[in-house]
Amino acid sequence: MKRIAIDMDEVMADLIPKHLQLYNENFGEALTLEDLHGRKLREVRPHAVEELRGYLSDPGFFRDLDVMEGAQDVIQELHEDHEIFITTAAMEFPTSFTAKYEWLKEHFSFLNDLNFVFCGDKGIINADYLIDDNARHFKRFEGTGLLFTSPHNVHVTGYERVDSWGDVREYFLK
Amino acid sequence: MKRIAIDMDEVMADLIPKHLQLYNENFGEALTLEDLHGRKLREVRPHAVEELRGYLSDPGFFRDLDVMEGAQDVIQELHEDHEIFITTAAMEFPTSFTAKYEWLKEHFSFLNDLNFVFCGDKGIINADYLIDDNARHFKRFEGTGLLFTSPHNVHVTGYERVDSWGDVREYFLK
Repeated sequence: MKRIAIDMDEVMADLIPKHLQLYNENFGEALTLEDLHGRKLREVRPHAVEELRGYLSDPGFFRDLDVMEGAQDVIQELHEDHEIFITTAAMEFPTSFTAKYEWLKEHFSFLNDLNFVFCGDKGIINADYLIDDNARHFKRFEGTGLLFTSPHNVHVTGYERVDSWGDVREYFLK
Repeated sequence: MKRIAIDMDEVMADLIPKHLQLYNENFGEALTLEDLHGRKLREVRPHAVEELRGYLSDPGFFRDLDVMEGAQDVIQELHEDHEIFITTAAMEFPTSFTAKYEWLKEHFSFLNDLNFVFCGDKGIINADYLIDDNARHFKRFEGTGLLFTSPHNVHVTGYERVDSWGDVREYFLK
């Protein structure tokens, strides 16, 4: 049995499409996921960094995000043989606490909420694996980082990469 | 430099007097801290366990707790030489997230909020020390547990104990 820590945004929860849609609506643009290849939206449109942060600070933003394809099935499967913790950098958006908690209870009701961790610096996480789309969290994490592919990280190298929840299943079954 | 994880309730924040006062007001009693020697309030008054839990579930309960004597000075001092993380079992009372965050920002503004951790099972915490009043958290914690004395834990043995923030200062200066 291994302890697997899993990030929420862009790993379990499909954040980017909603964020992009809010931007497009507010700025009258038609950016697509392809425009975010290798970059975060705030890097593509630096003049809108305040507004982009504002969307994420809306207390409800994180409540109705779609679940990433395959996340429920694979996490449930991993949960049978491994210890699962959800480790999300919620301190960057303190207004998100309740929405994130409720979202997890709704979509991952089989998980024990004592295994939810709302943190900032993931160096504090004691786990064998961390599945995350932000490679910066691996720098101080003492276990093995698995980089979950997201448009913004496609050019990041130096870490083992999983492109989908199918890849995660395969990684832990091998 | 060591990494020191610090619990909030009954270590940084003086929870018991407010909890006891609410109970006494609601049940017309006059229990004192002495009545809680070696036991939690819910063990002393098991018939009121629902009400006692209800007080803690009030979203504002944790917002105006007093700071434990010496906590600010000693944590600020420790912060100069060590890495401080605040690790609180907030998942037991999800309604407390915002109040706990705001309380920390108000009374410990010198700490980085990326070092706040709202969790449940503290086995996930990767630190050298954990200062906590609940010895159960030490069972799965891989570092050194320091039991912060609180009325309910006076009979607990098997752990190094600190009776006050003065004791904590002395422990880390030795």
